[in-house]
Amino acid sequence: MRKASLISIGNELLNGQTVNTNAAHLSAELLSAGIPVASAYVIADETDAIARAFGLAGTDADVVIATGGLGPTDDDLTRQGLAKFLGVELELRDELLEKIERFFASRDRQMPTKNRIQACIPAGAKALANIGTAPGIMAESQGKWLFALPGVPAEMRRMFAESVLPEVRRLASGQAVVVKKLRCFGAGESTIAERLGTMMQRRRNPLINCTVESGVITLHIIATAEGRDKAAQMAEEDEKSLRAALGELVYGTGEQSLARAVGEELAEQEKTIAVAESCTGGLLAKLLTDAAGASRYFTHGWITYSNEAKTSELGVPADLIAEYGAVSGQVAESMARGARTRARTDFAIGITGIAGPTGGTEQKPIGLVYISVDSDGDCETRRCLLSHERRAIRLRAAQTALNILRLKLNI
Amino acid sequence: MRKASLISIGNELLNGQTVNTNAAHLSAELLSAGIPVASAYVIADETDAIARAFGLAGTDADVVIATGGLGPTDDDLTRQGLAKFLGVELELRDELLEKIERFFASRDRQMPTKNRIQACIPAGAKALANIGTAPGIMAESQGKWLFALPGVPAEMRRMFAESVLPEVRRLASGQAVVVKKLRCFGAGESTIAERLGTMMQRRRNPLINCTVESGVITLHIIATAEGRDKAAQMAEEDEKSLRAALGELVYGTGEQSLARAVGEELAEQEKTIAVAESCTGGLLAKLLTDAAGASRYFTHGWITYSNEAKTSELGVPADLIAEYGAVSGQVAESMARGARTRARTDFAIGITGIAGPTGGTEQKPIGLVYISVDSDGDCETRRCLLSHERRAIRLRAAQTALNILRLKLNI
Repeated sequence: MRKASLISIGNELLNGQTVNTNAAHLSAELLSAGIPVASAYVIADETDAIARAFGLAGTDADVVIATGGLGPTDDDLTRQGLAKFLGVELELRDELLEKIERFFASRDRQMPTKNRIQACIPAGAKALANIGTAPGIMAESQGKWLFALPGVPAEMRRMFAESVLPEVRRLASGQAVVVKKLRCFGAGESTIAERLGTMMQRRRNPLINCTVESGVITLHIIATAEGRDKAAQMAEEDEKSLRAALGELVYGTGEQSLARAVGEELAEQEKTIAVAESCTGGLLAKLLTDAAGASRYFTHGWITYSNEAKTSELGVPADLIAEYGAVSGQVAESMARGARTRARTDFAIGITGIAGPTGGTEQKPIGLVYISVDSDGDCETRRCLLSHERRAIRLRAAQTALNILRLKLNI
Repeated sequence: MRKASLISIGNELLNGQTVNTNAAHLSAELLSAGIPVASAYVIADETDAIARAFGLAGTDADVVIATGGLGPTDDDLTRQGLAKFLGVELELRDELLEKIERFFASRDRQMPTKNRIQACIPAGAKALANIGTAPGIMAESQGKWLFALPGVPAEMRRMFAESVLPEVRRLASGQAVVVKKLRCFGAGESTIAERLGTMMQRRRNPLINCTVESGVITLHIIATAEGRDKAAQMAEEDEKSLRAALGELVYGTGEQSLARAVGEELAEQEKTIAVAESCTGGLLAKLLTDAAGASRYFTHGWITYSNEAKTSELGVPADLIAEYGAVSGQVAESMARGARTRARTDFAIGITGIAGPTGGTEQKPIGLVYISVDSDGDCETRRCLLSHERRAIRLRAAQTALNILRLKLNI
């Protein structure tokens, strides 16, 4: 079975300033492509260390992917390290230089002299196109495939998908790994593990792994077999079993966020939504508009952070705030109703709460959030007590609001 | 200067399911203790690979710290790998066995047979106490100090602080590292590097490192000296030189976000702000309210995603939209004015643009964003052409808006 090895280059990865998310992304992608990662190296911005790492990684694997160190500054030394390992010189490529100059020109800027180095790649190597200024590099040496990609995650991911993945897939031939992801919201990791029982055992094939982020639990079904069809069939059978065991906890697949699942369903059902936010301060609207095409279902949002804004913009009666407090089910409901009336949408969400770290009382502690989802003839209001700190409380409140709407939409 | 090398052991780190946070934690801790990390290895649960990694790490550094692979299951092989590297056998230590048995007894459970292996350590090595069942291991070989710690973050962190850090500090003796961070916005990495010139040279002390995130450039000043006072003084002098060279590009220090710097200054100057967002869809408000205490300066926000919302909520004339288009300087200005008038704040920001991935034209390409900052008697409108994809364009637009406001506030 062919394997891959990763090299992450950059002092910032070694002094604890940056968590290495590129390596995790590449590992998952390579595994899906049928090439598991056998080893990973994190090294400093030094030509000799980089050259040595290419050698070490090449003894572990057939495909070596380095990230980082392609920037324009003096501590970007990946080009030099790779050239040293290959035993060749760096060459200035005119077509790359033109491209970089055009990149700056299109932004009405002159190319700084420093960026000239980005047009250099080791002799005999191939340049890979980038959305940023730094081209990637692909080289072959003693039957091993070597790649150098930028460290900026957005650039790295796009270059990997467009230029590296097709090559890697060709090398993987035969041995197939199919990964499916089921995305769940509404229960904790241990509840899900209990419902799944022995399916989560190690060394089972397919392997079921579980990761958690922003309250969303992702179940990874990793099926390995000779041939893609067989692996795909195994993954599909497991998906059915997991869906049966988890019911409405499953909201989507792949990389789909909760907001995206809700947005796509709103568009599908030709429904619209408005939001009225207090403690989440724009986060709910931001999540709903993260996806392209959000204008199909999202038109209006209000962030009524002060009481006065709740009254003037959404028509929440000042009396109601005085009687129940700004953080109350009554106010959440009035915010949602006001937003839906003004925006003339099918749904509206009102959120008010105490995100902390101060402002909590015994009756209304930090983490208390009221969420109201208003639709024609129906208004559902929920009281939530969310834990952890401000960031987590805000995110969890927005996600919970989306989840209430999801269940109303029958996703 | 003494250095450290890290070995992270575990298949879950290589298939992309787990992000390696242990390495980032240890790197930062070791740097503060005066022992920078020179390299890091991530390897699979295999005895030979582990033994080889101890050898490689030992050539890079004086202190080698491995994490993971000390559990009781068959794929926990760090003990075996370390023993193989040291060329010794594993020994069962009675006192460790008793401790593990007591651990289970105190929880009214019998020790599973599998856990017996956790009482074994390489002959001649020292066991390190743990809050969990797996003792850590410390060994010396050819003048190098080797440590094996558990992979569970809570256990690892405690064992590192209690058993490893005192040893490491002793080895570092005298040598102190002080890290300062300066945060900049408004220019690219290469422009900043050009302005700093030789200060960014490798092997300089203090070392100046540069990381980029969301358009914010962080300069890390890493000063190394005999004694903490001397290192602190060196870092301070460099901070002065950097500030002099970069002028108003520097907006803050440490972990401070651009939104936080702006928010704190608004509170300090007792000024308020409202926002009117189109393409950023709530992100600007979200950034401004991420920090606790945002209600001191933030009261109102509007997300006017549709043209109709711009007109009904902010009073943007429909004629103006018809004449110039929703993505125009005129509309951005009208949004900002409308928001400031309605909210009666000192400042208001209006943003309208094309975040993509569709909706661009030749005249108005994807990434075109107009930002208007309105204040009493003054309205500054800027046309920006931002690159990359939707997420980056939205984030960069919001950050640029904050930066215009920052410069108005003279931060």
